[in-house]
Amino acid sequence: MGEPVDGTAPDEGGIDWRRVEDVELTPILEASLDAFYELGYHGTTVREVARRVGVTVPALYYHHDSKEGLLIALLELSTADVLARAHAADADGGDDPVRRLANVIEAIVLRMTGRARLASLEGEMRYLSDENRQRYRAVRKGIEEVVLRIVQDGTASGDFDVDDPAETTRALLGMCQSIPRWYHAEGTLSPEEVAAKYVAISMKTVGARTK
Amino acid sequence: MGEPVDGTAPDEGGIDWRRVEDVELTPILEASLDAFYELGYHGTTVREVARRVGVTVPALYYHHDSKEGLLIALLELSTADVLARAHAADADGGDDPVRRLANVIEAIVLRMTGRARLASLEGEMRYLSDENRQRYRAVRKGIEEVVLRIVQDGTASGDFDVDDPAETTRALLGMCQSIPRWYHAEGTLSPEEVAAKYVAISMKTVGARTK
Repeated sequence: MGEPVDGTAPDEGGIDWRRVEDVELTPILEASLDAFYELGYHGTTVREVARRVGVTVPALYYHHDSKEGLLIALLELSTADVLARAHAADADGGDDPVRRLANVIEAIVLRMTGRARLASLEGEMRYLSDENRQRYRAVRKGIEEVVLRIVQDGTASGDFDVDDPAETTRALLGMCQSIPRWYHAEGTLSPEEVAAKYVAISMKTVGARTK
Repeated sequence: MGEPVDGTAPDEGGIDWRRVEDVELTPILEASLDAFYELGYHGTTVREVARRVGVTVPALYYHHDSKEGLLIALLELSTADVLARAHAADADGGDDPVRRLANVIEAIVLRMTGRARLASLEGEMRYLSDENRQRYRAVRKGIEEVVLRIVQDGTASGDFDVDDPAETTRALLGMCQSIPRWYHAEGTLSPEEVAAKYVAISMKTVGARTK
């Protein structure tokens, strides 16, 4: 009764975590992303961003109170997007740790290959003020927690064979985060192919029981 | 007869790959590293580097022909150091792929934790000119080749169980390269402890046969 039910697996908040549509950015943030990527954070001026968008500097300051405000806004949007996808992918795996981990790794890798420019902003994080860096780290910690919980669940259920869940989680995220470093340079693989390879490697890394 | 032989395992060129002494940098390169780290590549001027060293700008240009020359010199020194350590660690493992891989991962992780500032320069690589980027990539490829050869040897000998040696190699290096992102922030572990953990995780990732 009521709403139609389609045949796909349920996911949290209706996010299609396999589809990497662009994160929606305002024109100001889009221009900031371009500028940070091309010129680096320190090489970018608020004036340069305003010029690219075609607004005055005061108009830009009306929306964002500083250059650091632009960087933190981009980092938070980016991380929140990954976090939402990771949650949806996790939920989609039901109570099977193997499927949950495979889904989450797939979601993260698709995001890394699909939005490499946004993903590579991470490196600029060290320029944030202490306060903003702590705030951003807390959001990013959320992604780590999703993966950690799966690794712990799988270890407890005997599906995985892991000695150190926390460090293994960081290693898994580290391998995914490094993808933008080489993907555009040497990439002859599609995002889906890269994702499938990293799912397979992750399964080895957690010593997943072959079913 | 002749030279005394000590009890330690032989290593290539006498490099003690477990000892992370500082890479020797000239005062100009040391100042450049500080400036790039604090201000970013684009935020750094040759004038600023000269000021930190206490030399004139023309004196600096006598040694390095541009700001990009400073960055490439640092990147090449850093990568050459990792490569030399990786070769020595590999040779130290004799013909046992398990020991060879454990040694090389240990050497790389010790380097990442011990010289995190130099290691984090990697992120500035995208600002290099095409020619310099290609040149630098070739050196870095050497490190990838050391690990790849071990993964291939171990797979051939049945010591490892790996589906895709090339991608697994990139994943292993990716997890090591990500260490500087969190090591200083959250590190309560010693470099040796981090190295031991990453060796264990790497063994899982290549499905090393337990001996």
